[in-house]
Amino acid sequence: MKQSQLFTKTSKTISKGEVSLNAKLLLQAGFIDKEMAGAYSFLPLGLIVMEKITRIIQEEMNAIGGQKLSLTALQSPEVWQKTERWNDEVIDVWFKTKLKNGAELGLATTHEEPLTNLMKKFISSYKDLPAYVYQFQTKFRNETRAKSGILRTREFIMKDLYSFNRTQEELDAFYNKCTDAYRNIFKRTGIGDQTFFTFASGGSFCKFSHEFQTICEAGEDIIYIDRQKNIAINKEVYSDEVLKELEIDKNKLEKAKSIEVGNIFKLGTKYSKALHLSYLDQEGKSNSVVMGSYGTAPARIMGTIVELCNDDKGIIWPKEVAPFFIHLLNISNTDKASQLAKEYYEKLTSAGFDVLLDDRESVRPGEKFADSDLIGCPYRLVLSDKTISQEAIEVKRRDEDKIEIVKLKDLIKRMKQ
Amino acid sequence: MKQSQLFTKTSKTISKGEVSLNAKLLLQAGFIDKEMAGAYSFLPLGLIVMEKITRIIQEEMNAIGGQKLSLTALQSPEVWQKTERWNDEVIDVWFKTKLKNGAELGLATTHEEPLTNLMKKFISSYKDLPAYVYQFQTKFRNETRAKSGILRTREFIMKDLYSFNRTQEELDAFYNKCTDAYRNIFKRTGIGDQTFFTFASGGSFCKFSHEFQTICEAGEDIIYIDRQKNIAINKEVYSDEVLKELEIDKNKLEKAKSIEVGNIFKLGTKYSKALHLSYLDQEGKSNSVVMGSYGTAPARIMGTIVELCNDDKGIIWPKEVAPFFIHLLNISNTDKASQLAKEYYEKLTSAGFDVLLDDRESVRPGEKFADSDLIGCPYRLVLSDKTISQEAIEVKRRDEDKIEIVKLKDLIKRMKQ
Repeated sequence: MKQSQLFTKTSKTISKGEVSLNAKLLLQAGFIDKEMAGAYSFLPLGLIVMEKITRIIQEEMNAIGGQKLSLTALQSPEVWQKTERWNDEVIDVWFKTKLKNGAELGLATTHEEPLTNLMKKFISSYKDLPAYVYQFQTKFRNETRAKSGILRTREFIMKDLYSFNRTQEELDAFYNKCTDAYRNIFKRTGIGDQTFFTFASGGSFCKFSHEFQTICEAGEDIIYIDRQKNIAINKEVYSDEVLKELEIDKNKLEKAKSIEVGNIFKLGTKYSKALHLSYLDQEGKSNSVVMGSYGTAPARIMGTIVELCNDDKGIIWPKEVAPFFIHLLNISNTDKASQLAKEYYEKLTSAGFDVLLDDRESVRPGEKFADSDLIGCPYRLVLSDKTISQEAIEVKRRDEDKIEIVKLKDLIKRMKQ
Repeated sequence: MKQSQLFTKTSKTISKGEVSLNAKLLLQAGFIDKEMAGAYSFLPLGLIVMEKITRIIQEEMNAIGGQKLSLTALQSPEVWQKTERWNDEVIDVWFKTKLKNGAELGLATTHEEPLTNLMKKFISSYKDLPAYVYQFQTKFRNETRAKSGILRTREFIMKDLYSFNRTQEELDAFYNKCTDAYRNIFKRTGIGDQTFFTFASGGSFCKFSHEFQTICEAGEDIIYIDRQKNIAINKEVYSDEVLKELEIDKNKLEKAKSIEVGNIFKLGTKYSKALHLSYLDQEGKSNSVVMGSYGTAPARIMGTIVELCNDDKGIIWPKEVAPFFIHLLNISNTDKASQLAKEYYEKLTSAGFDVLLDDRESVRPGEKFADSDLIGCPYRLVLSDKTISQEAIEVKRRDEDKIEIVKLKDLIKRMKQ
């Protein structure tokens, strides 16, 4: 993409009232815009990052047999009343609205009920199982507090996968597979090292659910980490009894604030029983389908990345989720430089690199450098009169101070290293 | 994709209360599910079609300089009150809801106001223009009637592009470019021949807006077509005066029912004036930005395709939007056939074809044929004991009756024709 054509601009000032670091940096760099507290628009650069994260999640979900669908946000009360979750005290973040005829509707905060209901049309025999379905779909949650930037919003795209199995054993096996898929997601998005598989409350479904918690000061959770075992315990279930059960030595634990970037749940037969989703087994006996749910959200991951990967100059995107891999700055004013910049933009793009070319005229070099740091692409290439006279280009990684001078003829090779 | 792994099934019965042809066929073929009147979920096959249509639209919007973003559905009253469109009588399809603190919110039915407001942060000089931004974003419309299947729903993804120009001339030029892009969209999605550039009401903005209307009995509009001039007039603006203005001979007009698949609007300065979006020109004089809006919706296009492209056996997808290009049916029970089917699935897939392999065991050939017609991929390939003995495969186009027997070694070449 050519920066001269990008309509967004970076901003030196931080909007008043914005307290979260991720929102500040993303607003400044022109990735997002704040519509209201807890509702952010994604501008071109931000949307590219969202789509890259989404693609990673999708690849991992497809790899474990997930089939993609898309359910509706609008919900009628009936199916939710059967599980008693229409009640505003049970789900306390409903946005409710009304049809013209006065009938009450809700905006889905999650989709266990409508999906379980839908699957009744397709599941009747053991031959129809297992089934793993997921979506990237907009959830609405009427949050009272919404001060964490894009980490917790009132409207966000969630990836929610639901598993439908014959037996608890089959669910357990898939749950482990999905756990690995989640680890891959966090590894690929660049937050794997700081993200821990965490024992958390299982609610009314089971003893524990599991969260993926990323160590971060901006987090709303507190976890106790056992680095040796590579697991953590959410404060909400932390007790001597649980420590004993998990064979964890209290003295080895490290306490930290963290962001919940994923949550996986063995739902068992709670929803299938309430909504009568059952199958006939090989003996012709009817059984309730055994379910699980697996959630994460691209924007939550994006916000977490920004909270973790930044310095006083701006964002430092991990490679696989960066809006562009290379930010190519032309800071010369000559026609020759401009021609050369375009040539290298074409060559790098053809070689498979995502490139943002800062071809803006009448923008000072200092401003281009500052913008580049703020936007945070992994590599910055600078074409100046000096480098051109050396038939070379300046190469700098966003996360390093070192500057290399690379001959133009060696550039593609260098970038592929 | 292997059909044995697809969780959806076709259905012989049509759900009661469904009156629209597109919904009936899509429900039967397992492409969609009805959540409530006017709200449909997209199941895997349906979502693939939606994504293909979306990709086509995106390519065409990018080709004319569109930059993609994504605004929020949740809307605060303030900006809409400035244009008086918060009023339920002005926009009569609002869904309104409330924050926990009692503050009223709405679910966006369109996005002129929030986007115009947003652009104020980035547009101040003539140098910042033109800008063309678009999104694929979920709109909510509280429709009183919702009986047209996926043609008119209460929740749907709209592609809405907004243009920001310096002058009326610049807007006019872009408007023509976007008109061509829309023609490409309808051509590529297979409904181009029946779709007409139609003069329609310009509302309070201008004399005419333009619609793209597709001739179809299921349509809610009535148009008068001049086939020679390749244009049409919507009944809402049809008058002797308009005919005269457009130099159209009344006697050459053909009256037809039609579906509005696109609508483009010269908004002029209505929103930019109301919301104070202006720019300084080269002389330092302040001018209001000249705007346009350009809408279409993937599901509306999908429903229109289904209304037009079907027979008594099911859907007949145009090539570029079909869920799969090839439906490969294995109707033999031998291991050899099953092995061969897999090989051909791999080979065709590697050659770049989208293939749905019906590898379901214990499903009779007749049922596989019926399902294949219902699902409607452009090509059906059948591997049977008979064709295998001839080292061949049966090839049939969904829109033709003719059956060819093609040698297995020639298959890829044949499919590339």
